[in-house]
Amino acid sequence: MSKIDFSHVPVKTGSIYPAPHDAEMAGRASLRLGDAGGLTQFGANLVILEPGAKSSLRHWHEQQDEFVMITKGTCTLIDDDGETEMTVGDCAAFPAGRPNGHHFVNQSDAEARFLVIGTRTPTETGWYSDIDMKIDMNPEGFAFTHKDGTPYSGEDK
Amino acid sequence: MSKIDFSHVPVKTGSIYPAPHDAEMAGRASLRLGDAGGLTQFGANLVILEPGAKSSLRHWHEQQDEFVMITKGTCTLIDDDGETEMTVGDCAAFPAGRPNGHHFVNQSDAEARFLVIGTRTPTETGWYSDIDMKIDMNPEGFAFTHKDGTPYSGEDK
Repeated sequence: MSKIDFSHVPVKTGSIYPAPHDAEMAGRASLRLGDAGGLTQFGANLVILEPGAKSSLRHWHEQQDEFVMITKGTCTLIDDDGETEMTVGDCAAFPAGRPNGHHFVNQSDAEARFLVIGTRTPTETGWYSDIDMKIDMNPEGFAFTHKDGTPYSGEDK
Repeated sequence: MSKIDFSHVPVKTGSIYPAPHDAEMAGRASLRLGDAGGLTQFGANLVILEPGAKSSLRHWHEQQDEFVMITKGTCTLIDDDGETEMTVGDCAAFPAGRPNGHHFVNQSDAEARFLVIGTRTPTETGWYSDIDMKIDMNPEGFAFTHKDGTPYSGEDK
């Protein structure tokens, strides 16, 4: 069956961020729709943000293109250009290697949702714009460190 | 600006299919949103189908994952499993190499739209399920042939 049965897609909550940043992700959930449909080359996730929740820490990817379409409610895109309100049908693109950290924050009083597509690559480094942290990923796993590569302490160095 | 300005995205119509199949694509248009946002690793296109229009000839990809979300109206997904009605928010996934040819047909009396994501790869072969045709793509261009590789004549051999 090519159509995705949402009733069988697990709702993922929580965060892989190290403390104290994991707590910042309260109110965010996601459905891994592409995985549910057997896709491997890109992620296709439906992200659900309760009022006040954010999609991620503000970040950019070295190697992976990212595309977003708002599907419910209103979100605020925050990047180096400032705040941009986005509503249903609005789209945004974040080319790999463009060092403009971005995230989406639900500043409304109702649930918001968006579809996000991101390429999968064997390795990747993601940089967090507002704190002294980066993530390195490879086929064995991932590691958060300070931007100089030393173990992440939970505070900017 | 990461948000995509739809007013600057060209509306693409027409078809690259050889006659007589090009005429089958009447009533279909698309906006190449990912290209407009500077993405290169996957296509992210908004497809607009007038009543009676179809998204493509029924096909499958050897190398490229494909993902669809309906964003307006109602479309009928047609693949080897038959007909599946899909409406706003419904999604479908077509993993690379799964030989289940698919397309979307607007069998309603109102405009329908969907977002389609497809990986970009240096080479690709696409197979058309209902006719004796395939497409081979490489960095230099593309060619339609019969499934045995001979030049496409416009009729099944």
